[in-house]
Amino acid sequence: MDKIFTLKKTCENTRARRGRLKTAHGTIETPFFMPVGTNAAVKGLCSRDVREIGAQVVLSNTYHVYLRPGLDVINEFSGLHAFMNWDGPVLTDSGGYQVFSLTKLRKITDEGVRFQSHVDGSTHFFTPEKVMDIEQALGADMIMPLDVCAPYPCSRKEAERSVSLTTDWAQRTRERFLDNGQDENQILFGIVQGASSEDLRQLSAREITSIGMDGYAIGGVSVGEPVKEMFEAVQWVEPFLPQDKPRYLMGIGMPDQIVKAVSEGIDMFDTCLPTRLGRHGTALTRHGRTIILNARYANDQGPVDPDCECFVCRNYSMAYVRHLIKAGEILGLRLLSYHNVYFYIQLMREIRQVLDDGNFGNFKKEFLKKYDSELQ
Amino acid sequence: MDKIFTLKKTCENTRARRGRLKTAHGTIETPFFMPVGTNAAVKGLCSRDVREIGAQVVLSNTYHVYLRPGLDVINEFSGLHAFMNWDGPVLTDSGGYQVFSLTKLRKITDEGVRFQSHVDGSTHFFTPEKVMDIEQALGADMIMPLDVCAPYPCSRKEAERSVSLTTDWAQRTRERFLDNGQDENQILFGIVQGASSEDLRQLSAREITSIGMDGYAIGGVSVGEPVKEMFEAVQWVEPFLPQDKPRYLMGIGMPDQIVKAVSEGIDMFDTCLPTRLGRHGTALTRHGRTIILNARYANDQGPVDPDCECFVCRNYSMAYVRHLIKAGEILGLRLLSYHNVYFYIQLMREIRQVLDDGNFGNFKKEFLKKYDSELQ
Repeated sequence: MDKIFTLKKTCENTRARRGRLKTAHGTIETPFFMPVGTNAAVKGLCSRDVREIGAQVVLSNTYHVYLRPGLDVINEFSGLHAFMNWDGPVLTDSGGYQVFSLTKLRKITDEGVRFQSHVDGSTHFFTPEKVMDIEQALGADMIMPLDVCAPYPCSRKEAERSVSLTTDWAQRTRERFLDNGQDENQILFGIVQGASSEDLRQLSAREITSIGMDGYAIGGVSVGEPVKEMFEAVQWVEPFLPQDKPRYLMGIGMPDQIVKAVSEGIDMFDTCLPTRLGRHGTALTRHGRTIILNARYANDQGPVDPDCECFVCRNYSMAYVRHLIKAGEILGLRLLSYHNVYFYIQLMREIRQVLDDGNFGNFKKEFLKKYDSELQ
Repeated sequence: MDKIFTLKKTCENTRARRGRLKTAHGTIETPFFMPVGTNAAVKGLCSRDVREIGAQVVLSNTYHVYLRPGLDVINEFSGLHAFMNWDGPVLTDSGGYQVFSLTKLRKITDEGVRFQSHVDGSTHFFTPEKVMDIEQALGADMIMPLDVCAPYPCSRKEAERSVSLTTDWAQRTRERFLDNGQDENQILFGIVQGASSEDLRQLSAREITSIGMDGYAIGGVSVGEPVKEMFEAVQWVEPFLPQDKPRYLMGIGMPDQIVKAVSEGIDMFDTCLPTRLGRHGTALTRHGRTIILNARYANDQGPVDPDCECFVCRNYSMAYVRHLIKAGEILGLRLLSYHNVYFYIQLMREIRQVLDDGNFGNFKKEFLKKYDSELQ
């Protein structure tokens, strides 16, 4: 494969980067946001919507798709792309985070992790090698290794074990990845763990980068820790990540967190917040969150977000979307999810533009001044 | 207003008719099907979807929209069209059927009907005049008068009272309609009641047609009676309906029932079945119903309906839609609802075509031979 990542420009005032990432299903402009398609579908949106919104990549969950519909079904389609009818790049996470957040009765050994499916209670055993085989079958363009995600808060011992197993499993992952010939079409990331300890985060970063992956992710930062600690982890790890590889802050975050993380040198983001907030009647705007069930919007003929040019804001009013949510119509959830995903995609488009124009520092300042993360 | 309904052609072998209906928001080719937008939205579908599907008219429910969001909101938009962002024709029913099927503690007097909202338990009083005023505010192109829908089964006395009140209220409706000047932009239908009695159906038909409405509906046929009795009612009433007015069989029905009703001289249909079946994982095809949760479809790479050209069938597989439904993804409900509504719209397109071609008799025979109404 040609060079995977090209760093095109760096910001003069921050650590922000503008780049390009080549995948088997197209070239991605960085930094970028990936809508989350947990069950091989971005909640409420079909692949045509996702294309229309302008998303470059869809993320899907190895854990969920492996359990349902299962590889028998995905194999019929030779992978997720045809199954979802999405011809753009796909990233699959390894299932590590889901195993540690969704399942019961899990047992971690050096070999792997045994867990009970949250779908039907059946027992499964994931090893780093098995996850590579599954991700080969899913056929995503970017793939993640099985890692061990420490809970928050956690003991020093738990954090140490998370780091050492994650490193060991990353090495085994890389070997299987090469043995399988997956490197011909797939980009393998390493995941840095280490919980809230500076030295463990840095140890993990040194170990994972020494394996030599195609990109690096910071994991375990969306498990419930305060925002301050999340950014500490990013700042501890970032200097250890090679400039010529893409960096991915997993599972993050609210729009203001994304702007800040870009300024810390992160290139890739995902979160289910836009669709989850949409399903709860919350719209995202440049001012923060809008709770559209608020009575003040009952007669509002304007769009959900006056600054937005998305399909929903161009065609439907706040009052209409609010009515749909109040009446329990799934169309309301769908329209709000559409708007919120568009909001993230448009934000990233603007971030790339101001990076190109050398104006990211001002953009960040203005964005954070206007955006109220507590606004209801 | 110019002539509202033009009868273009009648079938030689059946009572089927091909016509054209002029409304303030466009001309409708008959016979036609109206997707049901109970809460000012066809469940799961945005107005762009409905347009793409090719629906000519959307039906909305006076009862539901009056209760939520309420006329205060609709008045801000000067009616349903702008509220829903649908610029084609709209029909609103009167709420009569909903008052009798959804509400508690209702009390009918000669004056009107008092009922408790199913949304919040608040008490409301509908009179024929009030419903006309509401429907004027909603601004639909075709409107229905408040009627009294007898339950199934019902006593002779109940059926008689339903007929006499419905006639009385239709007269009061017509007077208010003219007083309000609604006849400038709206088409008022009369509704024939009479339950399962031939003489009462015919009495009602004579009384309602003598008032002189712009079109005629057969009501009370979707309240739970056997299909055989429904078609008896149609056959009793139809000869009393003027040829030069559109005929509407309210709340009907399954695809084979629609084909049969067209052959009995009906022009207009509505039912929430396509979206309701979609939400329950059932797809409609020319062979009948397909329960897509059936295990045999788990790996099916073909479309939901191999005979269908809709957006969903052109882009997504049976296995994918099945997976979405199994995983509880609202996208699955949306895609199946889309297909099912398309199925009805496409069926009506073909019916109009074979009527134009003088081939409806054969079409009906072939359709009913292929379609298994019991097929699971």
